[in-house]
Amino acid sequence: MDEKKRPHLIIIGGGFGGLTLARALKHAPVDITLIDKANHHLFQPLLYQVATASLSPGNIAMPLRAIFRSQKNVRVLMNRVEYVLAKEKKIRLVSGDEFPYDRLVIAAGARHSYFGHDEWEKNAPGLKNLADALRMRQKILVAFEKAEALVESKGLTGSGALSEENQKELKRLLTFVVVGGGPTGVELAGAIAEIAHNTLKKEFRGIKPDTARVLLVEGAPNLLGAFPGTLGESARKALTKLGVEVRTQSAVKNVMFDAVEVGDELIGASNVFWAAGNTAASLLKTLGTPLDKAGRAIVESDLSLLEYPEISVIGDAAHAIDYATGKPLPGVAPVAIQQGQYLAKKIKAEIQKKPLGAFRYWDKGSMATIGRGRAVAKIGRAHFSGFIAWLMWSFIHIMYLIGFRNRFAVMTLWMYGYLTNSRTVRLITADDL
Amino acid sequence: MDEKKRPHLIIIGGGFGGLTLARALKHAPVDITLIDKANHHLFQPLLYQVATASLSPGNIAMPLRAIFRSQKNVRVLMNRVEYVLAKEKKIRLVSGDEFPYDRLVIAAGARHSYFGHDEWEKNAPGLKNLADALRMRQKILVAFEKAEALVESKGLTGSGALSEENQKELKRLLTFVVVGGGPTGVELAGAIAEIAHNTLKKEFRGIKPDTARVLLVEGAPNLLGAFPGTLGESARKALTKLGVEVRTQSAVKNVMFDAVEVGDELIGASNVFWAAGNTAASLLKTLGTPLDKAGRAIVESDLSLLEYPEISVIGDAAHAIDYATGKPLPGVAPVAIQQGQYLAKKIKAEIQKKPLGAFRYWDKGSMATIGRGRAVAKIGRAHFSGFIAWLMWSFIHIMYLIGFRNRFAVMTLWMYGYLTNSRTVRLITADDL
Repeated sequence: MDEKKRPHLIIIGGGFGGLTLARALKHAPVDITLIDKANHHLFQPLLYQVATASLSPGNIAMPLRAIFRSQKNVRVLMNRVEYVLAKEKKIRLVSGDEFPYDRLVIAAGARHSYFGHDEWEKNAPGLKNLADALRMRQKILVAFEKAEALVESKGLTGSGALSEENQKELKRLLTFVVVGGGPTGVELAGAIAEIAHNTLKKEFRGIKPDTARVLLVEGAPNLLGAFPGTLGESARKALTKLGVEVRTQSAVKNVMFDAVEVGDELIGASNVFWAAGNTAASLLKTLGTPLDKAGRAIVESDLSLLEYPEISVIGDAAHAIDYATGKPLPGVAPVAIQQGQYLAKKIKAEIQKKPLGAFRYWDKGSMATIGRGRAVAKIGRAHFSGFIAWLMWSFIHIMYLIGFRNRFAVMTLWMYGYLTNSRTVRLITADDL
Repeated sequence: MDEKKRPHLIIIGGGFGGLTLARALKHAPVDITLIDKANHHLFQPLLYQVATASLSPGNIAMPLRAIFRSQKNVRVLMNRVEYVLAKEKKIRLVSGDEFPYDRLVIAAGARHSYFGHDEWEKNAPGLKNLADALRMRQKILVAFEKAEALVESKGLTGSGALSEENQKELKRLLTFVVVGGGPTGVELAGAIAEIAHNTLKKEFRGIKPDTARVLLVEGAPNLLGAFPGTLGESARKALTKLGVEVRTQSAVKNVMFDAVEVGDELIGASNVFWAAGNTAASLLKTLGTPLDKAGRAIVESDLSLLEYPEISVIGDAAHAIDYATGKPLPGVAPVAIQQGQYLAKKIKAEIQKKPLGAFRYWDKGSMATIGRGRAVAKIGRAHFSGFIAWLMWSFIHIMYLIGFRNRFAVMTLWMYGYLTNSRTVRLITADDL
């Protein structure tokens, strides 16, 4: 790096990793350009609560500019990076503009992976950003409205009972299939079952929302594969209690409009949601360096690229080895946050030409919620499930809503929502059905 | 009405009028079908606060089904009514389904009127529902982001100063024109000026948001034409202080993409918003009964149609005479609410075959806010302006958030937002810029 002027650091992505890094460099002699395609940081672990009408987008997102208002060494740009010209130390935006950097950190995250079947996406949307969540919320709510319209119209027009075709359509509208038994799939299936079986109860005069069918489909033998076996079993029991049909060791063979093929069975469903796999940001392909099967950049023990030590990759975009287990680190917020913290130290050390050891992940535990007041958690060697685990989950998530000035309001709304099961954000805001 | 069975009342529209009516008939021996194209009731007076990022949609909207959950004589349908077949006592949905009624109340509200220039709508959107508000919020925020991208890209690519063409584009991006000097236009212009001149200050490194230009254009000589003259003058002063250019007696001659023609001047502006006129729901045209210039149905003193006494029209869809002034009643929430209350009494009286006098509007006053902590109000013969008027405005609006379980949360967020000027709901949620 040029010693005369302050180095220019470009961070791509304002998620947990990028945000943590930029904030930790507040007093460092470095000029930071943070580029994100959204104008906000998103508290992704609670995204499924927006998709299921418990929280508003404003509760879990915060404008990046507001976060960095008083941090003078950060400039925020809302834009898309299309290409990394690693040899020239430049990035290129979709507009064609090229910015030079001294140091680059790619924290661009991941999108859903459809295992080579990208055509499934339009029928089985996933959940990564606010637009996804609002679309999913709309889809769930509209399904119930359409079902009610079908039944009530029959009654009000006086045209008699539902035909066999109508019955089939009704069943399709009230069948929800969630693909993928990781934390997102488990949380989503639990929340949809609660909407159908509790929240909407008594709100319809024609249909009975609690007859809705919610399926959770997973290819592996257990739910929550990343957790120890007993937690997957607890999750299965809790979901079954909520009325979710859990199907493990079941492969999704095809996703069509209004139907999904699971194993040999064709299930009519107008709502199929995808929580099955991730693929890292496609930007990484432009590096020309080794990627893993999930498209993540393979990084050194200091999170840099072997070929380009001035480029680091963190979070869901990185394939970094956990030295405790020898396996790649999972794509979860605590990994990204710790990598951001480490990289801030690293960049400061580089400027001072001091050495710094390799990155080490400290596993504080993992947890997932299963509907209201129930969760599973692993902390160190201890496993928890039920209400205690849920309280822990709630507390830790709210603690992490750092920088969200409305943390207290979120907590209140959320606890209130859980206690009363109200889900008042059930809004269909798009112009058309 | 048939005395053997309970009469079937269809209410079209779940706004202030329709909602008040349905709730007031809770214990009446009548079966109610409430049809709305949205799934929620909207607290429209605060809609501009969603458009300007102070409140979330969930704060000012409530699912209709949740409101009527325990009112057994109401069924809610989310649908569009296309036609009233008044002679057959039926309504027809867009789906083609026809429902018979014994009694019909049309409370379908109004849309913007472009005075015969419907082609202006795409360049100058108005503000009637949540989708409008979210689109407006997005448009305002994206304008600042695009301006910043223009300036910062020049700096980061090292391609030197802005060209004359760039300067012009920058000016266009940061010019906001609000057409219409009624309460909505005044409130919107004030809020946009606050965003530019206060909220976004210090959040951009390239542009200076406080150089943004906000114009309010009105054809009449005074702002707030429905209010007495002195309040219009107070509003003008307050807006000018906030940095809004107020142009009264100025006609909009054309709205183009990225420009608006005001009088003889062509003003480059990528954000033009419409708050100039209303036209009642087009459904009213299918009645075949007299409408006024604004498309509103002309109703009798009991709010029914002369030709069809079993049909009543209320709220923004009705042209009803105020017996105190001899002029038509304005399209404001208090009128719709009082008409809903009156009609509930009327329908109960009809069932009991009792007479009921004509509708009388009781004017409790009117008010509008002009930015943070400032408002104008008229209550009886007294006029108020400034902070006292704003406190009154806030109190009355929050009082009216009846049925909104999150009333207290809204009040907290809102007061907090006003005090800190934070506007944390500055989210761009659509997928693309």
